Amino acid sequence: MPILNENFLNLSQRYLFQEIARRTADYRTSHPDADIISMGIGDVSLPLAPAVIDAMHRAVDEEARQKTFRGYGPERGYLFLREAIANGDYASRGIDISPDEIFVNDGAKSDTGNIGDLFSADNKVGIADPVYPVYVDTNLMGGRPIYYIPCNEKNSFTGDIPQIKLDIVYLCFPNNPTGAVITKEKLQMWVDYALDNDCIIMYDSAYKAFIRDDSLPHSIYEIPEARKCAIEFRSFSKTAGFTGIRCGYTVIPDEIRLTTKTGERIQLNKWWERRQGCKFNGASYISQRGAEAIYTPEGLAQTQAQTDYYLHTASLIRQCLESLGLHPQGGTNAPYIWAKTPEGMSSWEFFDFLLDKAQVVITPGAGFGKAGEGWFRMTSFTSKEQTECALTRFKSCFPGKNLQNR
Amino acid sequence: MPILNENFLNLSQRYLFQEIARRTADYRTSHPDADIISMGIGDVSLPLAPAVIDAMHRAVDEEARQKTFRGYGPERGYLFLREAIANGDYASRGIDISPDEIFVNDGAKSDTGNIGDLFSADNKVGIADPVYPVYVDTNLMGGRPIYYIPCNEKNSFTGDIPQIKLDIVYLCFPNNPTGAVITKEKLQMWVDYALDNDCIIMYDSAYKAFIRDDSLPHSIYEIPEARKCAIEFRSFSKTAGFTGIRCGYTVIPDEIRLTTKTGERIQLNKWWERRQGCKFNGASYISQRGAEAIYTPEGLAQTQAQTDYYLHTASLIRQCLESLGLHPQGGTNAPYIWAKTPEGMSSWEFFDFLLDKAQVVITPGAGFGKAGEGWFRMTSFTSKEQTECALTRFKSCFPGKNLQNR
Repeated sequence: MPILNENFLNLSQRYLFQEIARRTADYRTSHPDADIISMGIGDVSLPLAPAVIDAMHRAVDEEARQKTFRGYGPERGYLFLREAIANGDYASRGIDISPDEIFVNDGAKSDTGNIGDLFSADNKVGIADPVYPVYVDTNLMGGRPIYYIPCNEKNSFTGDIPQIKLDIVYLCFPNNPTGAVITKEKLQMWVDYALDNDCIIMYDSAYKAFIRDDSLPHSIYEIPEARKCAIEFRSFSKTAGFTGIRCGYTVIPDEIRLTTKTGERIQLNKWWERRQGCKFNGASYISQRGAEAIYTPEGLAQTQAQTDYYLHTASLIRQCLESLGLHPQGGTNAPYIWAKTPEGMSSWEFFDFLLDKAQVVITPGAGFGKAGEGWFRMTSFTSKEQTECALTRFKSCFPGKNLQNR
Repeated sequence: MPILNENFLNLSQRYLFQEIARRTADYRTSHPDADIISMGIGDVSLPLAPAVIDAMHRAVDEEARQKTFRGYGPERGYLFLREAIANGDYASRGIDISPDEIFVNDGAKSDTGNIGDLFSADNKVGIADPVYPVYVDTNLMGGRPIYYIPCNEKNSFTGDIPQIKLDIVYLCFPNNPTGAVITKEKLQMWVDYALDNDCIIMYDSAYKAFIRDDSLPHSIYEIPEARKCAIEFRSFSKTAGFTGIRCGYTVIPDEIRLTTKTGERIQLNKWWERRQGCKFNGASYISQRGAEAIYTPEGLAQTQAQTDYYLHTASLIRQCLESLGLHPQGGTNAPYIWAKTPEGMSSWEFFDFLLDKAQVVITPGAGFGKAGEGWFRMTSFTSKEQTECALTRFKSCFPGKNLQNR
């Protein structure tokens, strides 16, 4: 009799964005003429950069000819892309990461979940609250105990250093959902904690392309000795609009070790390679060639123009929410804005309210964890025109701006 | 202290094809001028069909324009592709599979491994020997006990029906590595076993496009009531040369149930959707448009011409091995040929022997399990010219064809 992995029963029935999609679809069914604007899911809207498009056309053409056809690629990704990443994202900032420590994948979401395969159910996992739900859900599936790290205005949404020993800590900066960034000094405190407690930091920096303040760390490896304790996850989804193209990468330095029950210390990236050999067959060649083109001078300029555009819409959202007294956080150096719901409304109530009154979809903060209750997230990825329209409607729900601060 | 999932220690250090790649690279280092022909890994060599290429160019162009740009797709795949699959692969053979029971992925390998996430470590798993190593390795990672089902000449490499109760059984037809096919009558016996024992069959039919004998089942759902007990895995890798493009699909009928410890019966595909929502973000849009094109009249004709080509090279390999008295199996209705090593040689010895004497890479049978010892696998995916060259060299290793039957 096939038996369920009972850990699944600890999950909520629906993944957050599946639930948002369901409520939105229900509303559309009962209001077929509604012109709904989604400021909810973090999906980009600008078309791909010309440099990326050209590279993908060339890759498709290569697949059309006998001499240049490529079948299975290396599971860890083609060297041309791993070298472009090592040079463009690391060496350019004085960080020494070898192409052999880089594992190309089909997106950061997959690997932030998949990495759990390597860890026993005994590991204590620290996860921010509020948080991107994937870290929570995939650790629940793996049966690992979770300790929540409250992120709030008091600690600038960067969490207080835990007083207990954790084996794994997930950090994400620039943050999803709060849009918070972390300073080098604070990140140093997290690295010190990890080194002192033999803890691995899972560092999700999928949004690093939005950092404009150069004093902020772009990579956790800008902190001395982070190579000994941190795995970094990156994505081209937001850097270059690859949400439909599917390509990202994971960096696992050679120094990262896991302990066996007999006390042996094994090199994690060797076992990750073994895992990938069994459960992954590389990202699409066409996607990898597209990703490589991001690192050309044209690609860099074109994709930075995209993130500039989103940062501008983020500033419009911030201004609007500020004017309504909703205490916006983030939205500078990050594509997300985190703000308070009007007095008395739960975050799902505010979701339903805005969908009904303004046909605008936001993401309820409670979907990101208990500490997200009373907050909501807006994203800057919708077009400027649609964002302006959404904000006008949004304001019209609050005539006279007579909102109470909470 | 981060603790390893100890189940990983039950894996061999290297994945089979990683080991083959290593030995081949070592040989190349010591023999830099060697012209090595690989008949080992099952990778295709023909360029993609024009219909697929055109569709992918169009998809790239869509991603270049604001109005047609697509970001995140549905995690389970676009409806256009799921409908093409339901019509082209199922309705066309009188099988009723709904697009909602189809989950598009980045290749069958990923999902034959990932599906294990849903199953507790208590499930008893039946796996053929010899076998594609992914089933074994991913179940070892999940800590599930494995019962090997010997596949040999006596049972036409289709396994004897087990005398014990198993919770999961993996079957693959046309088979990798043996090239064996299964009749409807024998497959009915497996389905009856599964229904009688409340067992789920994981049916890998990644090679169904090579079936030319129409009396053979193309899908396990041609067997009555298989919807109640079988999950089917399919891939475009060999159907249409998508090994570098990464697209396949999994069919999970609504009837398939898992049992919780309290005896509740839950619908497996609902929880698979939940799993995918957390750990996957859909296959590349460009790959999905390419896959859709396989089902057009041009796409069908062009991709069938490809599999016809490979089946012709398979027949050349069979003839050669037959003439050398090596008892070839498979190679008709399947792209793989399975044959005996010459007397006294282990399969890795024969691998090294052929690499050294003929610069031809085969896959040693022992890499597929204990029962594979004394056998080797050749694939028909190399070009006709290279295959002919490899076979000439192969024969020259056995002057006078004076091989002993084993």
